[in-house]
Amino acid sequence: MAVGLKALVALAPVAGVRVGTASAGIKKAGKLDLVVFELSEGATVASAFTKNQFCAAPVQVAKKHLAASAARYLLINTGNANAGTGQAGRINAIRCCETLAALTGVAADAVLPFSTGVIGEPLPVEKIETALPGALENLVADGWNRAATGIMTTDTLPKGVSKMVLIDGKPVTITGIAKGAGMIKPNMATMLSYIATDAAVDAARLQSIFSRAVDRSFNRITVDGDTSTNDAAILVATGKSGVVINDANGNQFEDAVTVLCIELAQMLVRDGEGATKFVAVVVNGGAVEQECLKAAYTIAESPLVKTALFASDPNWGRLLAAIGRAGIEALDVDLVELHINGVLIAENGCRAASYTEAQGVAAMAGEEIEIRVNLNRGAASTTVWTTDLSHDYVTINAEYRT
Amino acid sequence: MAVGLKALVALAPVAGVRVGTASAGIKKAGKLDLVVFELSEGATVASAFTKNQFCAAPVQVAKKHLAASAARYLLINTGNANAGTGQAGRINAIRCCETLAALTGVAADAVLPFSTGVIGEPLPVEKIETALPGALENLVADGWNRAATGIMTTDTLPKGVSKMVLIDGKPVTITGIAKGAGMIKPNMATMLSYIATDAAVDAARLQSIFSRAVDRSFNRITVDGDTSTNDAAILVATGKSGVVINDANGNQFEDAVTVLCIELAQMLVRDGEGATKFVAVVVNGGAVEQECLKAAYTIAESPLVKTALFASDPNWGRLLAAIGRAGIEALDVDLVELHINGVLIAENGCRAASYTEAQGVAAMAGEEIEIRVNLNRGAASTTVWTTDLSHDYVTINAEYRT
Repeated sequence: MAVGLKALVALAPVAGVRVGTASAGIKKAGKLDLVVFELSEGATVASAFTKNQFCAAPVQVAKKHLAASAARYLLINTGNANAGTGQAGRINAIRCCETLAALTGVAADAVLPFSTGVIGEPLPVEKIETALPGALENLVADGWNRAATGIMTTDTLPKGVSKMVLIDGKPVTITGIAKGAGMIKPNMATMLSYIATDAAVDAARLQSIFSRAVDRSFNRITVDGDTSTNDAAILVATGKSGVVINDANGNQFEDAVTVLCIELAQMLVRDGEGATKFVAVVVNGGAVEQECLKAAYTIAESPLVKTALFASDPNWGRLLAAIGRAGIEALDVDLVELHINGVLIAENGCRAASYTEAQGVAAMAGEEIEIRVNLNRGAASTTVWTTDLSHDYVTINAEYRT
Repeated sequence: MAVGLKALVALAPVAGVRVGTASAGIKKAGKLDLVVFELSEGATVASAFTKNQFCAAPVQVAKKHLAASAARYLLINTGNANAGTGQAGRINAIRCCETLAALTGVAADAVLPFSTGVIGEPLPVEKIETALPGALENLVADGWNRAATGIMTTDTLPKGVSKMVLIDGKPVTITGIAKGAGMIKPNMATMLSYIATDAAVDAARLQSIFSRAVDRSFNRITVDGDTSTNDAAILVATGKSGVVINDANGNQFEDAVTVLCIELAQMLVRDGEGATKFVAVVVNGGAVEQECLKAAYTIAESPLVKTALFASDPNWGRLLAAIGRAGIEALDVDLVELHINGVLIAENGCRAASYTEAQGVAAMAGEEIEIRVNLNRGAASTTVWTTDLSHDYVTINAEYRT
């Protein structure tokens, strides 16, 4: 059901990062469900976590460990989210970190834990502890593709991107993987993404670059507006390429990271539950970006707009109604222009004089839809990516337990 | 598909109000699609309109007429919403008012227009003008039941309530009808409700009573979070009972109006598109009502919660996740308690120790579900009513044109 999602290409190793995987038996026997990233000493780490206040135990522990120590290992399990598990969940997450730390000779707070899967069930700590030595034994530089499979839950395909950019004349590699969740597959509780580069970036600069990149990518996608208790994204910089990111080359590096994050984020949307359309909602002409975001998200999360998209129905009345309830201060509705895949649909508060139903039907026929709104009251703009709302979405979310 | 919605009982006439209906041919031939309310001279009128900035032409005109003059007629057509029709729509709405005014000898701004139906098509003014004399000819005091049918669009049943209350020892009648829309059936663009009483209430008092009643009823229901361009609710007080509402008896009158509005609002939810469950989301223990509302609406509008309700799945993880993203400042998640139909499901940030899956399945089995959340941080509370999200919702909204 994925919309335009391609098979995963071979991902490039990143010097200073090794990846190990194992089958711990949390998911069905034989399925990869445990992933370990080993980071070289001196690597810097930037992070972004769910804002959900019911955040899962591993999120709470990872945040504490990040604040306390330099990270040397990332430990990810799928099949169980260790969310909604209270104090026992935190103890279990810490115990997994301690076990990995003991096996590798680092401090327990040098391990960052991540979990994704069923909510509310106790984490099967013993299974993870039993499988960890195997994951460490097969640590390899080119383990990224196996890791992309190992972090999957209900994803239909593994997701990842590698980029090579020349900075100061020298090659820098950035590789990232993601699993589709966040607002997209939250019944399995999580969007996770792990990205690494061999550039050298001090921790403060890396965090500010990553925060902006996340805001323009993972924070610009939605399938149903629901957010997960376990969302996390990590960017590691090992420095092994010898290229140091500074004020002069920072923008070039940030652009590369941002594009990679957008590509990963779009893969998540394309694999959204029940998706039959990949939809970009572009809002231009806002007084400030925040009001563009309000309009874009109200459109992207409107069940009426999403069911119309599923039906390939150019129902511009629902789009105008969504803009009208987006909470934009003193909006002059007569100035609003609406295009779908380049066809002018509405202006002056009503259907465009030039518009024909045949144009609208043609514009909605494909799998890739661009809804473009011009508020015509300023220079701000934004883009949000989303999917339609299909029968399969209801089926997946109503019947996944059976 | 309506959940527990009963056949309409005989509605009581309200002295000072006559109701006429006609088939103008906007809907299928022979269907009632035109309703006229005639209000006695001196009647006071309170109102509530959609907050959608793309509000329809009749909403714009009705607001102007209310501000300019005492209302003598309400003119409602179904089958066409006269929304998304720009300047031409406003001209058409005014022309209908002028025609009714000429036929009855009142000023044009003594007529309030209302429309509901398809968005974006020109209002068939000639059909309305042709049918108006017939509607005026059959003006009768006991026309409420026909009016309840006449204002229907995709509603499966007509909706109305009558109440008799003794105020100062004398009988006061309140009768109201509604059609199911608002956030509920917005593809046909509207929740409409018309309520009248024979009590005497000055305009300012009537408006403040009605605003509070609407806030506790029509503004506490949601099916999909989408709001209509045409929503309107009207409360008329004719004074014909001779009972004058004042500071001493005001609360008793307001309680009766509020209960009637809640009953009408719940009928709209019970007839919500594709509904298989009628769900009350009760949030107690908030510091202020606003944060209770945030939690209640985030739960009520979460596609994941709604699909779980459709599946009769006691998926408490989705409920906790919805509370966690509701934007409640400094929420202590360990204090939150969650009950479904009286069964304690979660506390201390995790599943309740006493909870069993069998309890949860039994609690979710019926058609009537109460989700009760205690934030345990204050004395504020609120209730929101909603439905589940079913395959039929998608079918109705994706395929209604075909």
